[in-house]
Amino acid sequence: MQAVFDYLRNNDTAFLEQLRDYLRFPSVSAQPQHKADMRACADWAVSHCRLIGLQTRLCPTPGNPVILAGTPRRQGRPHYLVYGHYDVQPPDPLDLWKTPPFEARIEGDNLIARGSCDNKGQHFVHLKAVEAYLKTGTELPVDITFLIEGEEEVGSDHLVDFLKEHRQELACDGIVISDNGIPSLKHPALTYSLRGVAAMEVKLTGPSRDLHSGLFGGSVDNPAMALCQMLGSLRDRRGRITIPGFYDDVVKLSAYERRQLAKLPFSEGQYRKLLGVKALFGEQSYTAIEQRSARPTCEINGLTSGYQGAGSKTIIPSWASAKLTFRLVPDMKPKKIQQLVARHLKEVCPPTMRIELEVGHSGEPYLMSPTGPQAQAALRALKGAFGQESLLLREGGSIPIVNDFRKILGVDTLLLGLSLPDDNPHSPNEKFSLTCFRRGMAMSAKLWEELGALDR
Amino acid sequence: MQAVFDYLRNNDTAFLEQLRDYLRFPSVSAQPQHKADMRACADWAVSHCRLIGLQTRLCPTPGNPVILAGTPRRQGRPHYLVYGHYDVQPPDPLDLWKTPPFEARIEGDNLIARGSCDNKGQHFVHLKAVEAYLKTGTELPVDITFLIEGEEEVGSDHLVDFLKEHRQELACDGIVISDNGIPSLKHPALTYSLRGVAAMEVKLTGPSRDLHSGLFGGSVDNPAMALCQMLGSLRDRRGRITIPGFYDDVVKLSAYERRQLAKLPFSEGQYRKLLGVKALFGEQSYTAIEQRSARPTCEINGLTSGYQGAGSKTIIPSWASAKLTFRLVPDMKPKKIQQLVARHLKEVCPPTMRIELEVGHSGEPYLMSPTGPQAQAALRALKGAFGQESLLLREGGSIPIVNDFRKILGVDTLLLGLSLPDDNPHSPNEKFSLTCFRRGMAMSAKLWEELGALDR
Repeated sequence: MQAVFDYLRNNDTAFLEQLRDYLRFPSVSAQPQHKADMRACADWAVSHCRLIGLQTRLCPTPGNPVILAGTPRRQGRPHYLVYGHYDVQPPDPLDLWKTPPFEARIEGDNLIARGSCDNKGQHFVHLKAVEAYLKTGTELPVDITFLIEGEEEVGSDHLVDFLKEHRQELACDGIVISDNGIPSLKHPALTYSLRGVAAMEVKLTGPSRDLHSGLFGGSVDNPAMALCQMLGSLRDRRGRITIPGFYDDVVKLSAYERRQLAKLPFSEGQYRKLLGVKALFGEQSYTAIEQRSARPTCEINGLTSGYQGAGSKTIIPSWASAKLTFRLVPDMKPKKIQQLVARHLKEVCPPTMRIELEVGHSGEPYLMSPTGPQAQAALRALKGAFGQESLLLREGGSIPIVNDFRKILGVDTLLLGLSLPDDNPHSPNEKFSLTCFRRGMAMSAKLWEELGALDR
Repeated sequence: MQAVFDYLRNNDTAFLEQLRDYLRFPSVSAQPQHKADMRACADWAVSHCRLIGLQTRLCPTPGNPVILAGTPRRQGRPHYLVYGHYDVQPPDPLDLWKTPPFEARIEGDNLIARGSCDNKGQHFVHLKAVEAYLKTGTELPVDITFLIEGEEEVGSDHLVDFLKEHRQELACDGIVISDNGIPSLKHPALTYSLRGVAAMEVKLTGPSRDLHSGLFGGSVDNPAMALCQMLGSLRDRRGRITIPGFYDDVVKLSAYERRQLAKLPFSEGQYRKLLGVKALFGEQSYTAIEQRSARPTCEINGLTSGYQGAGSKTIIPSWASAKLTFRLVPDMKPKKIQQLVARHLKEVCPPTMRIELEVGHSGEPYLMSPTGPQAQAALRALKGAFGQESLLLREGGSIPIVNDFRKILGVDTLLLGLSLPDDNPHSPNEKFSLTCFRRGMAMSAKLWEELGALDR
């Protein structure tokens, strides 16, 4: 293993130059004018994987092609999939970039370019770790296949079909994705849980048109008021959701998890300042970190009713509507939640209103055992590479492909993000820390060793 | 008096032709291109008043001129003011008119033209009643001054100053305005009360920008939800307002008033159909007529927050706002209500939100004694002219000039509208019933007799 680490250390300047080449392609999947750049970028990645020594092919899809690049498969060896994407967000607004987005400049500890952390830089560290095994003749403890797609930033529309079609070839023991983040260089972390989401829209209609509030007010109900009263009944003033049955399937946080989450850095003052809020908020008996990542929520995303221009208009609006999303935690089921919400809203809807409910998109929450062997192996790899105690993290957002992997391939995903909180993914001046780049390569090299040593 | 009624009856065809002349002027105060038409219309009215025998002058204002036309003032005689306006609403949309808006066509019992009921036709009946006295040599029981302005449809911006400047000349025992309506030809009515209004706007701000609901939801309050809970607390589900002190100054409906209001025609089924609502609504122990005219209300006129486009956007909105109006009844004070509402909203605002309150326009409610001598005189005049029991009406809307008259001249206004519910004021195919035209003239003639007979 020492040869592997030496190889990584001795070549990191060359690796950085290779990564800068990769980052020069404006592989913006959202913009049709970059179709040729997408293909050129994919071709570069294919060539690079072959140079490393991987068996590589470019697989067509109805959209942008997927790269499959793997070490030779060996009988009886564990097989892991590394997922990444070579497409990037549009660089706009260009005038806010301090350096050109596709020129990959180095400033201090940062590599600045669109795609540097999201996601070219992050999957590149895994390619380099595997290269180090191959080039030093060190036996890889596991078989590894890279799946690098080109449509992540536009919804991964063709990935599910691709996974289903290649189910046998991709059968594996687990997935590794580095596409999220860690709290700081001092807090390397494995993300073992994600929240799910369930969206809904509700519309109330009272009178068939806006009515004069002087002539009719008092004898006709007001849809905006009825909606406020109905929505106000969904949640108490501390954030506890009052819909019957809502918490039925919530898996309680274990004492171990709570202890781990408590180790994450958190300053209430800095958090308040970051968000620009007067005061924090949330369910009693939970920390802010737990509230935002390990507890379900009910949010109103938008409200619309009546007159919204300048001054006043003395009407009873004909209708009022709201957009709602619920963040879900294991083992809540989005469809069941949508049904509970719909039933509750219908129950509290006054007889004066016609109610229309529209069920929107949804995604299941994700949880892998934080005490299981794969998670613990990942924690050891992180600790070894970063020289810091590694932590367990839950994320409040959703990464839908993680559920797709579980459904289609039946395995867990190790979320080993290497992005820092100030890396600006999707924003101008996206960057990737050179320290994360180097520690990431070491972490990846260790990870294969740790995963290879597990009892299967 | 018989001579007066005979004169009115014998000349009604001629009067109708005169009114049609008056209606041919497109005196649209809102549209600058009709400035010359405004003046031509005022000149016509001045000439007509002089023909009748009134001492008439056109008084300039910074806007359109006001016509003052009066019978000679006699020592010791009661003096009444008749208010009307010669300006009209724009006729648009023109393509919805079945006949040209400024050609005053007669169809069946209706005279169809812009301004026919609002308000040229309605003040014209009073001019004709006074003419009948003057031309038949019948002694007018009271002195009468017509005040006919040209800016009612654009807010009567210069009327208050005009009243103040002419306070002495206009000193009087009461005002008569025919500019509203009655429920039907079988239900002639005096409107003795109007509701007031108080407008407010409330805005809550939580985070300094829209936040990702996955990353932060649960630890940050949602301004749209906080607003719903705050607004939902303003009113119970039957329409009873729960703001402390809100009802303190409400004058109770008397048993007499409730008996009178109960005589007004009302069909719940027709009303529901007219408004297109699933079910009626309102404070318990009050009829729909009482609820919409004699009880205060709290209405949300508009709601705005977050994302309102198609699909969903998983954000915690930075802010949420609402436009509110309160309809007020005697003796509620708009400023006091605005203070109570502001205090209550501040009290129920959670510590997570910054609250901004904006106080909007307001108008006081109006009430004259329904059992006083002037009201009873008006009821007798209505009954005599219509041959039907006359009723007492409260209107739910506001007519701000009525409060201006009371404040500046210190007198009550008899609201003796002659418009029917299907007269379409402000809409295409505005009309005025010929029956109302004829009965209105008789009512006016009787009114002066009744008012003249009162003890002063």
